[in-house]
Amino acid sequence: MNRQELIEQIKTKKNFLCVGLDPDISKIPQHIVDDEEDSIYLFNKLIIDATAPYCVAFKPNTAFYEAYGLSGITSLERTLKYIKINYPNHFLIADAKRGDIGNTSAMYAKAFFKRLNCDAITVAPYMGSDSVKPFLEFENKWAIVLGLTSNEGSADFQHLKINNQELYLNVIETCAKWGTQNNMMFVIGATKANMLQEVRKIVPQHFLLVPGVGAQGGSLEEVCKYGLTNDVGLLVNSSRAIIYASNGKDFAEKAALEAKKVAQQMMEFVK
Amino acid sequence: MNRQELIEQIKTKKNFLCVGLDPDISKIPQHIVDDEEDSIYLFNKLIIDATAPYCVAFKPNTAFYEAYGLSGITSLERTLKYIKINYPNHFLIADAKRGDIGNTSAMYAKAFFKRLNCDAITVAPYMGSDSVKPFLEFENKWAIVLGLTSNEGSADFQHLKINNQELYLNVIETCAKWGTQNNMMFVIGATKANMLQEVRKIVPQHFLLVPGVGAQGGSLEEVCKYGLTNDVGLLVNSSRAIIYASNGKDFAEKAALEAKKVAQQMMEFVK
Repeated sequence: MNRQELIEQIKTKKNFLCVGLDPDISKIPQHIVDDEEDSIYLFNKLIIDATAPYCVAFKPNTAFYEAYGLSGITSLERTLKYIKINYPNHFLIADAKRGDIGNTSAMYAKAFFKRLNCDAITVAPYMGSDSVKPFLEFENKWAIVLGLTSNEGSADFQHLKINNQELYLNVIETCAKWGTQNNMMFVIGATKANMLQEVRKIVPQHFLLVPGVGAQGGSLEEVCKYGLTNDVGLLVNSSRAIIYASNGKDFAEKAALEAKKVAQQMMEFVK
Repeated sequence: MNRQELIEQIKTKKNFLCVGLDPDISKIPQHIVDDEEDSIYLFNKLIIDATAPYCVAFKPNTAFYEAYGLSGITSLERTLKYIKINYPNHFLIADAKRGDIGNTSAMYAKAFFKRLNCDAITVAPYMGSDSVKPFLEFENKWAIVLGLTSNEGSADFQHLKINNQELYLNVIETCAKWGTQNNMMFVIGATKANMLQEVRKIVPQHFLLVPGVGAQGGSLEEVCKYGLTNDVGLLVNSSRAIIYASNGKDFAEKAALEAKKVAQQMMEFVK
């Protein structure tokens, strides 16, 4: 999906919500686990159908699937395929946080973009240019580089000062030179909304993927205040607050209600 | 495997070679690809049997398996199992370069250490403490943190100066506080052997995993000169130079010869 198509989806739906598909067997409603062999896929399928009207993107975190080995990978691949077939206008992000030496990153890029047909993949920047660039060589595909993450440990390295500039800003500034606003985005944790102001000085137009709204405590208003562009320029992710809104038989219905609530809050920010 | 067991293996075999299992269908001998459905596994199995006498560790890079989807993951899991059953005294490293927020890293740790029974996993440090610490909570298991990588792009961020200290040294110094020399190692690219001197000032006793010897141009002598400890303290990895020593019917034999050559060079460095 290219930038213009993504912006059109956002403007049509009047929201910029990304639903994070992080299925954890211990949190999935018991009747789903009992009834179905591939319970992760069934859970996802019902969540996807329920929330698709209220979001523009889906983001499975690959860790939650890899943890279950072959059966988990099967669930992931079925989930990705289900989204691409049934919701081709939704932006599909593999949250895989990959990054390796050049030829190895190229293998990851091919796997996620070509074989699995994702629109975007999250990328860890520590290994530098040849670990990131292979993800920029596919038309209408995106690398979403980890800039500022929303976890506690982000302070350990991301805020270190390089000539008075924090490392995460240096990472964003450097990586932005390798791609364009048409093939690169950045992850910016929402628990630090005011830092979006600093990020916007460096990448005024790039899309930012903002996790941490909801369960991790970020505020949508704050994020919009500092992060919004004329083209919106934001994808705000919510995982747990939506997919685990209930663990009863009404889980999909409650997930839809929660997604709808967030989508409605977003409406005022989409011109 | 604990530190003492690893050291004993090294002293018994008089080498500290790690064979990198990075199978690429386009480089695997044609007769293997033609003859066998799971050609990656068969290739690995023959390489493992041929090189096991001349190495103390195996390191599959997970990217090379994930690239082939389910069939690749099957090959990876079969390979890991084959090593654990047939060569239980070899140190088994999953080169996965993982790192995510705390609860997600914990899922990765459980998958690689418990389900797949690896001894160690490589970890990307950018997200900080809660992305690394979950890998330190398993007895006799190891996190191998990316310190200095051997690729060209490593210069982009790893050499940035934080108060006159390069980032990779800051990463090593900080991460070393989260673990011990019994559950943490560091990746230090061999193309920069003299930097090992700086690393040894910070972690004089930790094991270092050194890629980049051979195909990537690193020198074993240089690495030993600056990196060796009384307990050896090094695992030197070679992938391509060994596993693709030949692409004919003699590939396993040639791989063994190549591994034996490196192992013999190592002998003089193991007291």
